[in-house]
Amino acid sequence: IPELIEEALEKAGLMKQLRPYIGGTGQIRNETIRQILAEFWGTLIFQMFGGSAPNKDTSAPAANGFALVAAIYAFCNISGGHLNPAVTFALMCTGHMKWWKGLMYMCAQILGAIFGALIYAALIPQLHIGGGNSSPGCFGPAQGTNWSEVFGWETMMTFSLVMTVYASAVSKPGHGNTAPLAIGLSLYAAAISGGPYTGASLNPARTIGPAVVFVCNVGVSFIYIIAEFFGAACAAGLSIFLYGRNPDLKHQ
Amino acid sequence: IPELIEEALEKAGLMKQLRPYIGGTGQIRNETIRQILAEFWGTLIFQMFGGSAPNKDTSAPAANGFALVAAIYAFCNISGGHLNPAVTFALMCTGHMKWWKGLMYMCAQILGAIFGALIYAALIPQLHIGGGNSSPGCFGPAQGTNWSEVFGWETMMTFSLVMTVYASAVSKPGHGNTAPLAIGLSLYAAAISGGPYTGASLNPARTIGPAVVFVCNVGVSFIYIIAEFFGAACAAGLSIFLYGRNPDLKHQ
Amino acid sequence: IPELIEEALEKAGLMKQLRPYIGGTGQIRNETIRQILAEFWGTLIFQMFGGSAPNKDTSAPAANGFALVAAIYAFCNISGGHLNPAVTFALMCTGHMKWWKGLMYMCAQILGAIFGALIYAALIPQLHIGGGNSSPGCFGPAQGTNWSEVFGWETMMTFSLVMTVYASAVSKPGHGNTAPLAIGLSLYAAAISGGPYTGASLNPARTIGPAVVFVCNVGVSFIYIIAEFFGAACAAGLSIFLYGRNPDLKHQ
Amino acid sequence: IPELIEEALEKAGLMKQLRPYIGGTGQIRNETIRQILAEFWGTLIFQMFGGSAPNKDTSAPAANGFALVAAIYAFCNISGGHLNPAVTFALMCTGHMKWWKGLMYMCAQILGAIFGALIYAALIPQLHIGGGNSSPGCFGPAQGTNWSEVFGWETMMTFSLVMTVYASAVSKPGHGNTAPLAIGLSLYAAAISGGPYTGASLNPARTIGPAVVFVCNVGVSFIYIIAEFFGAACAAGLSIFLYGRNPDLKHQ
Ligand SMILES: [Ca+2]
Ligand SMILES: [Ca+2]
Ligand SMILES: [Ca+2]
Ligand SMILES: [Ca+2]
Repeated sequence: IPELIEEALEKAGLMKQLRPYIGGTGQIRNETIRQILAEFWGTLIFQMFGGSAPNKDTSAPAANGFALVAAIYAFCNISGGHLNPAVTFALMCTGHMKWWKGLMYMCAQILGAIFGALIYAALIPQLHIGGGNSSPGCFGPAQGTNWSEVFGWETMMTFSLVMTVYASAVSKPGHGNTAPLAIGLSLYAAAISGGPYTGASLNPARTIGPAVVFVCNVGVSFIYIIAEFFGAACAAGLSIFLYGRNPDLKHQ
Repeated sequence: IPELIEEALEKAGLMKQLRPYIGGTGQIRNETIRQILAEFWGTLIFQMFGGSAPNKDTSAPAANGFALVAAIYAFCNISGGHLNPAVTFALMCTGHMKWWKGLMYMCAQILGAIFGALIYAALIPQLHIGGGNSSPGCFGPAQGTNWSEVFGWETMMTFSLVMTVYASAVSKPGHGNTAPLAIGLSLYAAAISGGPYTGASLNPARTIGPAVVFVCNVGVSFIYIIAEFFGAACAAGLSIFLYGRNPDLKHQ
Repeated sequence: IPELIEEALEKAGLMKQLRPYIGGTGQIRNETIRQILAEFWGTLIFQMFGGSAPNKDTSAPAANGFALVAAIYAFCNISGGHLNPAVTFALMCTGHMKWWKGLMYMCAQILGAIFGALIYAALIPQLHIGGGNSSPGCFGPAQGTNWSEVFGWETMMTFSLVMTVYASAVSKPGHGNTAPLAIGLSLYAAAISGGPYTGASLNPARTIGPAVVFVCNVGVSFIYIIAEFFGAACAAGLSIFLYGRNPDLKHQ
Repeated sequence: IPELIEEALEKAGLMKQLRPYIGGTGQIRNETIRQILAEFWGTLIFQMFGGSAPNKDTSAPAANGFALVAAIYAFCNISGGHLNPAVTFALMCTGHMKWWKGLMYMCAQILGAIFGALIYAALIPQLHIGGGNSSPGCFGPAQGTNWSEVFGWETMMTFSLVMTVYASAVSKPGHGNTAPLAIGLSLYAAAISGGPYTGASLNPARTIGPAVVFVCNVGVSFIYIIAEFFGAACAAGLSIFLYGRNPDLKHQ
């Protein structure tokens, strides 16, 4: 079958044009482009299933935790599976990501989250773009929760998520093939406990995506985003004390 | 004990007849037959426990996700544990399955799903063959969900499932012994989020099995099936860009 | 601290008596005794937490599935972590267990289940020995479920559990450190789907333990037990076709 | 980015003062300090998300089980990830921890639990320090459960948790990267079954932390604590019979 497709492309004259960018097996030659694609699609999938989950008991925590597990497994071979600008930011702080690549990752993640939210805006009946604060996937303080409590929860939850990332997937030897599971279960637990107060975003892309698509809680989104980056920076700091920053920094 | 059984078979004259097909330890000599058997039984188990689960909160997503985890673990050593014609189709597109073997896998999967549905038709009180649209395991659009939404959900859910399959179990080095877990948790998350709209099939065999046994939603099954194969083809396309198609294609 | 304990034991003259049975580090010298102990304690823990779980939505399936995961992880290094006479029986059929050792395992498992049920009989307020059919951990057909349906469910559920055991933990290379997880999730899924009809025992020790302690459903327990051994035997048969019986049979 | 931070620190004259304690990559030179920090932060995270989870169906068991999984994964590279004085006590009994280091671990764990409870005291609306017996994370017997039942449940639950720790993470070869998962799922199962009677603490730090912060059930906390240490000691005893105590005891 793949040979039939290739022949068809050949005839259409496309193969010739693609050849400089695409290797003999069809793989994109440029590693950075593969990584950007992986971050985009991974965050899109995570946003789509995590953001549209029904908000009841363990349903949303399980959907978010396991969608993150699956999306990291699905793309970590290519890009490391950050799927979260706060994770990427922490890795930039500790010298594990070059700053220009980190910014590209973040753009891909935010775009992925926007498209993920757009897709379920289209696929959920009665839901549409600009649906407002009650749209699925939108983050805002629960009734009775004030801004400093939101800030504290998002900081602590992102801190614990990013510490799990460092221990499992960044430090050596880490936890190998179980790393994505560890990271997703960290989100699962945080979402059960902090979810009733903030919705449990832990991820600037997940905050921005639905805010853009549904125009929801825009005035409060910046609190989430600052808290998430702050929690990630704290985790970066602790991880420097525990593991040290990237020793190969100069060569990167 | 196994020696007693062997002796009994010997006396019955069966061992002689079986000898050409069965090795010294009782294993079937032909690898393809073992693989077909594995796909049949794996899909049967997946259909039986996934299809009969009560449709409440996380019950059905957990039963489907974990039944898939267990069934892949139980049979992936033998056949790769596709248990899903959409997965097999994607692997045919990327050159990881020969087309004739892929078709045999698909037949085994569909037969397994039909028998799985037959078994719980027998084992659930008050349920019987031809039970109609409300029978357990039947897929149809939820009230208020239209056909294009069903198509979109099934495409996206199957896409994410098959991407997880490629990253975990097809690409090298993949995720080793955690691959079945990654794939099952991908289904778990998708079933929580997309389940309320389409029932979350993601699998043509799972769509066809109950449709045949309970004669349910037959008019709409083709939408599910097309969407599932389409989502799988999209995942095959992205995985070619990220990993390349099977480089050993010629020798297979 | 361990040296203080040793000294105390020494003074009490116990060390001298224990020396022939206990090695320099305190480990019991005889491997079979260690294995019997492991099967006893493992099944006790599994019965205690699995049997006493509240019967609501995913609570009982999760408690049973994860208690089994934990108990297998806790004792599989020592005894293989069968914790189920049906598993032991299957392994006897395929030549992976000597028959006399298998019988010892089964006794340890049944005793463990009885003690596990005794413990929660003591620890749950208002519950006592001989509490009858509604006692926690007792298995009986749900209202409207007949004996042949119970037989079918228990057969199929045990079959899928034991197939997972063979693929994960018996066949080579198996699934290494994820095997206990695979087996426990197989029980989790089965318990969601078949639990509403039979309670989902899948394990003669789990059937016998509470039946003895609470004198419950005694007339119907034999159906469960026969079905469980039958399902295990079917799995043994299929696993011979797929993997072959133990090739080292003669030397065992 | 890390270089910018270093330069800033350099200018502030801090680097010079820190240099004796902190290595070239920013890592703290002293291993014991790293371990104490890891136990403190790990228990803080575990207390924070485990203790604040809503007490409904599988919500609290999942939050506690998965928060423990994540916290062990996040810190086991550094300190072993005990996060529980009962675990540390057991390891002291079997010669795997020096007594002075064990006491330091315990202090770090208890402090971590106190800070964890303080944090959610601040972050949960309407909740405050000294909130009394109904505060989240407080352990006390359920209505109708007497002290000996509490003692029995906590003993058995801690016993099963610590046995899983020994098999997965202490004995050789153990269960490698899946050990944290095994331990967390052991807590998950125990919390479903014993949670309705005692709240399922299994951990003296988790008992003390909220008792100190919310002044709750202080009169009954000692029962929990004694039972937890007793259960851990029993597990240490059984693990000596099964695996032996640490053979490198003399050199430690
Ligand atoms: Ca719409
Ligand atoms: Ca029927
Ligand atoms: Ca009692
Ligand atoms: Ca407060």
